[in-house]
Amino acid sequence: MSKRYYEDFDIGDVRETARYRVTEEEALAFARAYDPQSFHLDAKAAESSFFGKLVISGWLTAAIAMRLIVDARSGEDSPIIGSGIDELRWTFPVVPGDELRVRSEVIEKAPWPGGKPRGVVRFRNETINQDDVVVMTYIANGIAPMRI
Amino acid sequence: MSKRYYEDFDIGDVRETARYRVTEEEALAFARAYDPQSFHLDAKAAESSFFGKLVISGWLTAAIAMRLIVDARSGEDSPIIGSGIDELRWTFPVVPGDELRVRSEVIEKAPWPGGKPRGVVRFRNETINQDDVVVMTYIANGIAPMRI
Repeated sequence: MSKRYYEDFDIGDVRETARYRVTEEEALAFARAYDPQSFHLDAKAAESSFFGKLVISGWLTAAIAMRLIVDARSGEDSPIIGSGIDELRWTFPVVPGDELRVRSEVIEKAPWPGGKPRGVVRFRNETINQDDVVVMTYIANGIAPMRI
Repeated sequence: MSKRYYEDFDIGDVRETARYRVTEEEALAFARAYDPQSFHLDAKAAESSFFGKLVISGWLTAAIAMRLIVDARSGEDSPIIGSGIDELRWTFPVVPGDELRVRSEVIEKAPWPGGKPRGVVRFRNETINQDDVVVMTYIANGIAPMRI
């Protein structure tokens, strides 16, 4: 297995993940468990909502993005630990049947304060649908080990 | 049902939700679906990880916080639409068995640009465990309708 250390991330590096198709069954199951609002649960009720149709929970979009990113990293057994997220925006509604992918770019890196053998790497992650519309963006802050 | 409009949110308003106990079954099911990293999936493998033990996915913590917030709003049929999240930080590991609640404070509000009858309300949401330790913080940006 290849390991990916702090030193291996270069600003400007871009990776794109595989694609993930969201089903209505998954959208409803997630909404029932974690986001039981009518516009995520009931197509009829959603017609008179802000969105005008059933849309998936933004937190499901975020969870799917994580899954795509983890799958794209497979084989790397020095995982980056997520410490936080900045500027997350849900920029376009996601509906059942959409096929999502993530484009991830390294935008910043810095050694950990205090001399521990790790550093912070920041990524701009865009989640994009089958029509090439960006549906969610955020900056992910990750902690990556250094080579010792 | 009571409706909660833009005008009804006052800066400094604080609400606290009910509590939600995370089970190991739920933690593993979420990890398998959305965050299949060894320290979320396998207690043995997690021992040699950054965390030293099995911890739940940070995205599950976020999903649980959403569920608690939606439940606390029940009866309000003018839902706030989440447009984005700022400064999300996972500040302390969450493990199966933990009991989480959310403390939500209105920190800022502003009318929507262009005169549409809605406004943006910002909340500082802290997710807190049974030992009163803050495990996750973020600022939620919501769109609330105004009274017309």
